Amino acid sequence: MRVTVLGAGYMGSAMATVARRRGHEVRLWGTSLDDALLDACMAGQPHPRLKLVLDGISIFRAASLAAALDGAELVIHAANSDGALHVMTKAAAYMPEVPVLSVTKGLLESPRTGQMERIGVTLAEHLRNLPSLPGPLRFVHAGGPAKAMEIARRVLTWMQFAGPTEAARFCARALEGDGLVVSTSSDLAGAELCSALKNAYATGLGLWDGYVGADAHDARAACFTQAIGEMKALVIAAGGQAETVYGPAGVGDLHVTAAAGRNRAFGEHVGRGRPAREVAAQMGAAGELTEGYQAIASATRFARERGVTPLPLLEMLHAIVWDGASVAASLAALQLTT
Amino acid sequence: MRVTVLGAGYMGSAMATVARRRGHEVRLWGTSLDDALLDACMAGQPHPRLKLVLDGISIFRAASLAAALDGAELVIHAANSDGALHVMTKAAAYMPEVPVLSVTKGLLESPRTGQMERIGVTLAEHLRNLPSLPGPLRFVHAGGPAKAMEIARRVLTWMQFAGPTEAARFCARALEGDGLVVSTSSDLAGAELCSALKNAYATGLGLWDGYVGADAHDARAACFTQAIGEMKALVIAAGGQAETVYGPAGVGDLHVTAAAGRNRAFGEHVGRGRPAREVAAQMGAAGELTEGYQAIASATRFARERGVTPLPLLEMLHAIVWDGASVAASLAALQLTT
Repeated sequence: MRVTVLGAGYMGSAMATVARRRGHEVRLWGTSLDDALLDACMAGQPHPRLKLVLDGISIFRAASLAAALDGAELVIHAANSDGALHVMTKAAAYMPEVPVLSVTKGLLESPRTGQMERIGVTLAEHLRNLPSLPGPLRFVHAGGPAKAMEIARRVLTWMQFAGPTEAARFCARALEGDGLVVSTSSDLAGAELCSALKNAYATGLGLWDGYVGADAHDARAACFTQAIGEMKALVIAAGGQAETVYGPAGVGDLHVTAAAGRNRAFGEHVGRGRPAREVAAQMGAAGELTEGYQAIASATRFARERGVTPLPLLEMLHAIVWDGASVAASLAALQLTT
Repeated sequence: MRVTVLGAGYMGSAMATVARRRGHEVRLWGTSLDDALLDACMAGQPHPRLKLVLDGISIFRAASLAAALDGAELVIHAANSDGALHVMTKAAAYMPEVPVLSVTKGLLESPRTGQMERIGVTLAEHLRNLPSLPGPLRFVHAGGPAKAMEIARRVLTWMQFAGPTEAARFCARALEGDGLVVSTSSDLAGAELCSALKNAYATGLGLWDGYVGADAHDARAACFTQAIGEMKALVIAAGGQAETVYGPAGVGDLHVTAAAGRNRAFGEHVGRGRPAREVAAQMGAAGELTEGYQAIASATRFARERGVTPLPLLEMLHAIVWDGASVAASLAALQLTT
């Protein structure tokens, strides 16, 4: 099968590696922001982020988008959420009528409604108006606990592909095996929302580590449980299913995000009393993107625009991270709910 | 209020500390196995396990059970699961007709059916036949992510008290506050079963750390998600509610147990290829009780006696830990299910 991956960062290059191992003909296309990464790959060096040589994968530069998509039977969308609209708009003119599996996570403001929406909703609205697209997008979201480096290294990974039934199954058959387990689901709304929310909540789990110190297991577990409850309320408000929250896209992805990584580290620094803006700026300057910082703002906007209440943990995170509320007073006042 | 705590180990002494802070008159009774712990407390030294001085708490030795229970308005049962039948049988003759809040976790073979049952079921069956008990036991189970040291140190802790509605609320009102958040539920079956199962499944999360090494976040998260799914199946088979699994007693307690502690460490050693029996013996000799080892056997028996299938993760843990199956082959063959 010919598989084209759009976006050559961590997840794009990891998914390209997985597709190649399944025996597919794989093309990895990067935006101009990916040029340095692709230079290394073209020189036969390991991908600078994934730390693996992308053996047997064809590299396409930003200008070669048409060639990269020509004859593709499966497209994997791995641009980050900021670049998603731009990349998909450019790609629309050359997009074959095949399933698009998206590993992009986050929420995107809809130009039509001005509200925060799932990426799938905003993309579909936007692309519907483009005459160049051959048909409606068969969009499948890839959720679940999947760290790029671990997928690429064949660590057991459980993903959930959510979207139209046949398209989701097609994507699963194309990629599963060799450590990668894929469940399919028709709950695109639930899976996309879980993926978008977990960065916000994972930041929260770091807060107690920073504030209490090493032995805050009870508080972290309480926060994890509360996060699952609030994610369920938000998923249901968005038309998704509670079951999705309790599966790999919800419980699983929150677990992996909270156990390690930059969002947790961001929360830890804030928990120690440093202003969130300063921490985010410093981590950003060091090349450590902290999605959780923005994710808390996006998730709060999403919740408020739909009137979802009560969400005491999310509101507390927003107050601390965006409104400068005191960590000590906020944690003491948090109301847990079942 | 007069509160009597039966069992002076980690959790008993922690709950006594909590009750004392709420302003209650607290009596801490220990079995003869607790003598060394009580010696230290009587000498004004910190409790040897909890590492805190039990200020203002009356200490009662094994022989003074009648005096310890005289006039109690709330009894907290904190003997370990092996000692539960023995302690409650002895206590029955002096037990006032008040709620019994049990922090004891595990499964117990019922002398009547010969099957593995929840502790609450086995205790109630056993005590029903004792003429000395003043009335039926108003048994409330305390579930949720609650490490004794962290409760005692006022780290945010979320417990769930499950049992007859009025009794559960009575226990909650008596103990909540100052960092301890208590939800109540009528789902005794679900909460007790979650508490019993989490040690078994937490062992599983350690396996991958031992086998894969440090970067097994994906596998651990997949295992956590699978554990939640299997716990749901077992809870429903036992007449409990799925919601309980998704709350503090399930998701929360599994999180805290898997994040740290002896069961996780036990799993890590086994994951590195050491025979489970040898690891358990060595940890036991070092005073590190590994509940997970026995919990895997008990949980598997509970599941098989009720014909609950499929439970691929629990069956795999049993095969590795009790039947000597290869870790590598077992992990590779594991089927995850939603």
